[in-house]
Amino acid sequence: MTADISKKLKTAEVEKISHIDYFKIAISVDCVIFGFENKELRVLLIKSDLEEFAGKWSLLGDLVKVDEDLDSAPYRVLRQRTGLDDVFLQQVGSFGAINRHPSGRVITTAYYSLINIRNHKLEITDNEVHWHSLKNLKDLAFDHKQIIESCLQRLRIQIMDEPVIFNLLPEKFSLRELQDLYQAILGIKLDRRNFRKKIALKNWLDDLDEMEDDVPHRPGKLYKLKTGLKKNKLIEAAEKVK
Amino acid sequence: MTADISKKLKTAEVEKISHIDYFKIAISVDCVIFGFENKELRVLLIKSDLEEFAGKWSLLGDLVKVDEDLDSAPYRVLRQRTGLDDVFLQQVGSFGAINRHPSGRVITTAYYSLINIRNHKLEITDNEVHWHSLKNLKDLAFDHKQIIESCLQRLRIQIMDEPVIFNLLPEKFSLRELQDLYQAILGIKLDRRNFRKKIALKNWLDDLDEMEDDVPHRPGKLYKLKTGLKKNKLIEAAEKVK
Repeated sequence: MTADISKKLKTAEVEKISHIDYFKIAISVDCVIFGFENKELRVLLIKSDLEEFAGKWSLLGDLVKVDEDLDSAPYRVLRQRTGLDDVFLQQVGSFGAINRHPSGRVITTAYYSLINIRNHKLEITDNEVHWHSLKNLKDLAFDHKQIIESCLQRLRIQIMDEPVIFNLLPEKFSLRELQDLYQAILGIKLDRRNFRKKIALKNWLDDLDEMEDDVPHRPGKLYKLKTGLKKNKLIEAAEKVK
Repeated sequence: MTADISKKLKTAEVEKISHIDYFKIAISVDCVIFGFENKELRVLLIKSDLEEFAGKWSLLGDLVKVDEDLDSAPYRVLRQRTGLDDVFLQQVGSFGAINRHPSGRVITTAYYSLINIRNHKLEITDNEVHWHSLKNLKDLAFDHKQIIESCLQRLRIQIMDEPVIFNLLPEKFSLRELQDLYQAILGIKLDRRNFRKKIALKNWLDDLDEMEDDVPHRPGKLYKLKTGLKKNKLIEAAEKVK
């Protein structure tokens, strides 16, 4: 290296001192946990503990510690608030409008996940954590409504290409349940015949040769996701954003 | 609201004071600008000005100002460093490993874009900004190699579904050029016949009824992207991450 070029260089310490005012931002993470129950897509919310948002609901989130990896923080939040520790969280995006947080400059990174409400028992210590139907979300704290919409948008794209949707269903399910779930996520009614044709083309399902029982309609055949597909596909989904 | 619940609430100010140590993080943005030239995918890099990374190349980036929206910052960086102000930047993800920056805790949000190198003349004031072939990227500063790989991964997924790839080509192009570009991005050789069949199925192109001239091989037909498709599809791509 010539002396000419090295003259322009500065140390990391000088860089920090000359930009000390920039090191005044806090980062939070927010978890958008989707579940499916009674034909409705739901999201896990907690009552805000800020006076400015009294009575409003917010996502499960927290500030990132200075000595904590960004991508580890949402797992900590989820574990502390719900006891869940076997859920894969996918980063969706960061939200950083200047005035989004009343405490000062806080930029948040949102993560989302899909869980089967019946299989994942939440160990909720805080009785203000609840599943909410996406259909009638009232005013939420912060920009959390926008964040949920972004995650929903990501989910809508992802369920077309990858078998991630099966994380929301029990192991055995009928095509009727699967269609109900697609409809809940996409927010539209699907034609039964077209839907079944398209799902068959994906080649995701094994016919279990069993029928539903104890249902208030004509029992349908039961299916499960092909062995090995679910886990691999979730890992692939992770690779895509990492 | 009952007194019982309001007891738990705190003001945003109290929240900040009790978490003042958390407000010590800086946020940066990094721009991954892809271009295509001589059958190679390229990325725009700048020599690092940090002593710790002497001689290494890095992405175009900067710290986010305390009074600047996160999503505005990469546009400022790009304008200041290259004069480009008509480029759409898509957020890809945030990178926040604890020790990724030698100055202290800096989390970065990465944005990517695709530009036609010939159509976008860079007004580069800093002679240390250059296009680099992705094939032989040496050691980069920070975690910038990982960030470029994440953006490339996003690009590979996106070019399968949406006509964003045409941002890298001149207005008129041959199917040979288009195949070269897909090959450069995917890093694999494609079968000419299969490629042409699949592209035809996408219904993205208009045949211009013109032939290439001045080429060192048999002239091919020229095509352009169907009118209206490019801009709309880029906006849609934006919607997907916002």
